[in-house]
Amino acid sequence: MEGYHAVHELLVAGRRRVRQLWVCESSSHNVSHLAQAAATRGLSAVRQPAEVVNEVSRTGAHQGVIAWAEPVPAVPLGSLFGMEPTTTPFLVVLDGVTDPGNFGAILRSAACAGVTGVVIGKHRSAPLTPAAVKAAAGAVEWVPIAEAAGIAGSIAQLGRAGIWAIGLDPSAREAIWQAPVLDGPVALVLGAEGRGLSPLVRQRCDALVKVPQIGPLGSLNVAAAAAVGCFEVARRRSGS
Amino acid sequence: MEGYHAVHELLVAGRRRVRQLWVCESSSHNVSHLAQAAATRGLSAVRQPAEVVNEVSRTGAHQGVIAWAEPVPAVPLGSLFGMEPTTTPFLVVLDGVTDPGNFGAILRSAACAGVTGVVIGKHRSAPLTPAAVKAAAGAVEWVPIAEAAGIAGSIAQLGRAGIWAIGLDPSAREAIWQAPVLDGPVALVLGAEGRGLSPLVRQRCDALVKVPQIGPLGSLNVAAAAAVGCFEVARRRSGS
Repeated sequence: MEGYHAVHELLVAGRRRVRQLWVCESSSHNVSHLAQAAATRGLSAVRQPAEVVNEVSRTGAHQGVIAWAEPVPAVPLGSLFGMEPTTTPFLVVLDGVTDPGNFGAILRSAACAGVTGVVIGKHRSAPLTPAAVKAAAGAVEWVPIAEAAGIAGSIAQLGRAGIWAIGLDPSAREAIWQAPVLDGPVALVLGAEGRGLSPLVRQRCDALVKVPQIGPLGSLNVAAAAAVGCFEVARRRSGS
Repeated sequence: MEGYHAVHELLVAGRRRVRQLWVCESSSHNVSHLAQAAATRGLSAVRQPAEVVNEVSRTGAHQGVIAWAEPVPAVPLGSLFGMEPTTTPFLVVLDGVTDPGNFGAILRSAACAGVTGVVIGKHRSAPLTPAAVKAAAGAVEWVPIAEAAGIAGSIAQLGRAGIWAIGLDPSAREAIWQAPVLDGPVALVLGAEGRGLSPLVRQRCDALVKVPQIGPLGSLNVAAAAAVGCFEVARRRSGS
């Protein structure tokens, strides 16, 4: 794992075992703060020269901080809802998002908007690469992620649990501002970069809505669409 | 310039002179479509093996497409408003956003939400690097960008033109959903990654609002906050 925020949240959340932590003296971030957080978990930060950290870095943007930790555990789909009757489920379902940077950015926005879980496909989705984990800036420590064998099947399972699947689709007629049920148990379904939602998933959604776009530019980035969608849910829930 | 969408919009917009266009046969995108767009502008695409394109690429993610073009021209701040009386100004002002990927992503979301212009600082901001232009996915061809000597001064100038400056600040009391005047002449002001708005700019804004955040994660990425802010303006303007 690389990047200041990602590793900071790893240490603060304390849900995964951390094997080793390297920090550079030359980091622009406050690595002594990080070393302190590590110490409270019985871990000592190893100071390394920048060249050594550069050599093992897989993102090329480690911010002077690299940690080795247990993998992020995937949770069963069923655990994302129905467990806490006081929480209204708010899920994000990714139907084939492939860019790790987009995947991480979506996790971060979703976490900030208060999602209760994220569902990804086992096969066609971006895995939690170092680049994804870094872009998520710690969101992987807090947001449970379920891997579904198939997205269409998982939408059906959510439907049986009373969760509405709202697909974001630029060709939809209705704007997301008009979408019903966003303040109830809901799953926002996002398609892959370029290709969008797959035909079967599009068909399985209870409603399709768009983020209305103005101007000549083709389409919104999927991470930007996710941010707009997640905070539209947050807005509705706040009663605004 | 690198990347399929960025170069596609460059050719379609036709506002900048293009000196040369290289495409790889092995690109996953439809480069013959691009070659056609180039031909209508009297330019022929040069087919190159991937190794040659990799060698000159500065983003490491060229998608098999590189073009050389005139630089994006900066426009005077005054040209962003008051010219077309039929258009209500909707500006995005960047107070020190430094990451090129964030800068490009903000330009793309802003363009999709219908902004009439973007203001950046001459000194402390990310320049339009190849990475920024690629992340903007063509937005630089359509959204006029003004370089201001100082952001605080440009906010004062906008104020004299009747444009309200609304700063996004996580420590603000009011949620953006409640912000007044978003359907009028407005400028959304965004601060730098981590540091946020500078003290003087914060003081000069007519109002400060936040994108309310839920959960333990620190803060929203600035490009995600920009997407939420820009589309909140779009929502208000649509009357939703």
